[in-house]
Amino acid sequence: MSSSGPGSDADRMARVALTYLAEPGNRVVWQLVRAYGAEQTLERLMGGDIAEAALRTAVAVRSGPGDPRRVAEVALRRAERLGARVVVPADAEWPGGVEALAMLELDAGGRINRDVRPPLCLWVRGSRPLGDAFERSVAVVGARAATPYGQHVTTDLAYGLAEQEWTVVSGGAFGIDAAAHRSALAAGGFTVAVLACGVDRPYPMGNSGLFEQIAESGLLMSEWLPGAEPLRHRFLIRNRVIAAATAGTVVVEAAARSGAVQTMSRVVALNRRAMVVPGPVTSAMSVGCHELLRRFPETRLVTNVAHVLDEVGRIGEYLAEPARGGDHARDGLDEESALVLEAVPHHGTAGPEQLAARSGLGLRTVLRRLSLLELKGLIVRREDGIALAALARAAVARTDVPPG
Amino acid sequence: MSSSGPGSDADRMARVALTYLAEPGNRVVWQLVRAYGAEQTLERLMGGDIAEAALRTAVAVRSGPGDPRRVAEVALRRAERLGARVVVPADAEWPGGVEALAMLELDAGGRINRDVRPPLCLWVRGSRPLGDAFERSVAVVGARAATPYGQHVTTDLAYGLAEQEWTVVSGGAFGIDAAAHRSALAAGGFTVAVLACGVDRPYPMGNSGLFEQIAESGLLMSEWLPGAEPLRHRFLIRNRVIAAATAGTVVVEAAARSGAVQTMSRVVALNRRAMVVPGPVTSAMSVGCHELLRRFPETRLVTNVAHVLDEVGRIGEYLAEPARGGDHARDGLDEESALVLEAVPHHGTAGPEQLAARSGLGLRTVLRRLSLLELKGLIVRREDGIALAALARAAVARTDVPPG
Repeated sequence: MSSSGPGSDADRMARVALTYLAEPGNRVVWQLVRAYGAEQTLERLMGGDIAEAALRTAVAVRSGPGDPRRVAEVALRRAERLGARVVVPADAEWPGGVEALAMLELDAGGRINRDVRPPLCLWVRGSRPLGDAFERSVAVVGARAATPYGQHVTTDLAYGLAEQEWTVVSGGAFGIDAAAHRSALAAGGFTVAVLACGVDRPYPMGNSGLFEQIAESGLLMSEWLPGAEPLRHRFLIRNRVIAAATAGTVVVEAAARSGAVQTMSRVVALNRRAMVVPGPVTSAMSVGCHELLRRFPETRLVTNVAHVLDEVGRIGEYLAEPARGGDHARDGLDEESALVLEAVPHHGTAGPEQLAARSGLGLRTVLRRLSLLELKGLIVRREDGIALAALARAAVARTDVPPG
Repeated sequence: MSSSGPGSDADRMARVALTYLAEPGNRVVWQLVRAYGAEQTLERLMGGDIAEAALRTAVAVRSGPGDPRRVAEVALRRAERLGARVVVPADAEWPGGVEALAMLELDAGGRINRDVRPPLCLWVRGSRPLGDAFERSVAVVGARAATPYGQHVTTDLAYGLAEQEWTVVSGGAFGIDAAAHRSALAAGGFTVAVLACGVDRPYPMGNSGLFEQIAESGLLMSEWLPGAEPLRHRFLIRNRVIAAATAGTVVVEAAARSGAVQTMSRVVALNRRAMVVPGPVTSAMSVGCHELLRRFPETRLVTNVAHVLDEVGRIGEYLAEPARGGDHARDGLDEESALVLEAVPHHGTAGPEQLAARSGLGLRTVLRRLSLLELKGLIVRREDGIALAALARAAVARTDVPPG
């Protein structure tokens, strides 16, 4: 490992410091990192070289108490003692799905569109590699004030998904989230709690026992540094990671005008499967679900595990075999996906329409296949289009040599 | 009234006799009536001049016991004693919506496609003119084995619709149907029970009290002669009239693989609003509803009266003023509907695509407007396309004279 550049200790430290200086997902910071790397970006920000006023103020406030690099060091040592690690995009275990956030545009209708870029780093407690855990994953989320009906349905769904070896991802909250985690654990399955605070102090306290179990046999994950508090706005920022890292999201119960609408509009924009469980029209906790089904034609009504697997199952088939190396990942591709992958230029990028034209497939098919290819880590979505991921390029270059 | 031709006693009698000889909606009989009139068709059928074997057999069996004209006479006298009347297409009160059945093609997916033509005549108990009763009407239908939840939701919906002066149409069955009728009556509103048997012996017996109330302050309606039994296959034949005569159909509860799928596929094919109430995924009586919502993208999830009015309300606005005469009906038209009506040729027919081209409107808009124009009785759908209805032609011919 070199002393600087992607994946180096300096890069890792800089990403942690940047996450401390500005909330995760910040558009300006992410663009700078993409252009100049994390280390240079941190230098720039600390030097006050920031065009955007809001970010400049935020950085000034956070830099006041001391050097952000020092804060990062302390956080990293604290994490080590806790058995937590920080994962960056250069790491093999980085969950490729979150990179789709780079393409997300939520200006129309989305309330928060400033903080939707991909994470710079992820803190993790639990031994399984992140990318592996998210390979076959479904988010099951919903109201904190869940009804017995909602908890019952959640328990059924999460149990069935876990039995089918799908990772059940949720936010660790009371109600639907907790029921989803608990049921996945009860089935002997795998679950990930994506937190809006430090992995050392998972919120809410009332779920402490559950979090300990998850840390042992699942994963606790967060973008925020250990010690970070679960501030209100962080839940919305966090939600984008749940939407992007998973193959689809199931909303079980949601009150009227809840965050579910924003969550689902992101899921749809990310081309992930948006699934909603209906309920009695007389239940306030199903009003939000029915709103979603009425408002977004892309959402799919689901009532059982089979329906959910219908939606995400195709992805699952292809990913059933762990697929890491370029060739290995390509071997498992269906014909359509292989055609789409072949259409992606070896250098530079192409838009979905171009890929449709080159591959001879419909645009809709191309979009679906791109999601799969992205989940497999074979392509990346950039602001200017679709590009081959490093591992796919390697495989193209050395077709006779298994990639490292 | 002349002694023969549309609307004459002979025509009326012939239509009754034909409905006795072959089940309502029979495609061959309806085509013959359209080509040669009811009286000549009856002559032909009684003379055995029938190409289709199944129809020939049916007619032979029914003609055996005696002259069908005699059966018709007896039925008409029996109806008169009962205070019932028979309504034919030439009558002012004929509900125009049912003529849309002439366009219905259900070969793909529909189980019964032989008996989907428009009715030849309708038997009615109750004083309000049929066409008037159906002008602002919504069907609320569902499972006989309704749950308390389904009955509760039905009661709410039907009450609200009745309060807004929408006619609540249903099938008179136990469960959802009965709850819909009862609630409309309780609201002081108007309700129509469309029966699959004679109006003199409404089925089921257990709803006798309800049927008496409906006959007094609403309408009992049937295609079948007084005395006809509620044979199993007749419910499916009957359902097409409910779908066609109303602006939309709400399914409240339905078991898996129930008739709801067929009903809704017809509602959609007829370009009426297809609405479904969701329920707990744990309830067997909502499985069919969720099936519908998953299977037909055209169906709309509704949870309250406002949602239903959203769907059918536009039609309601235009029809809020009773619109009978051609000019009168045209006066109330919105601009798009007026453009579509102008595009319909004064003689002959045109397809929706032609109307879209002539009016400069999108095909989807044209199709929606045609439904409205049809409900207003200004156009008729024929097998070969859309034609001006008699009253619209009259208005065109005599724009300065109020039509009779």
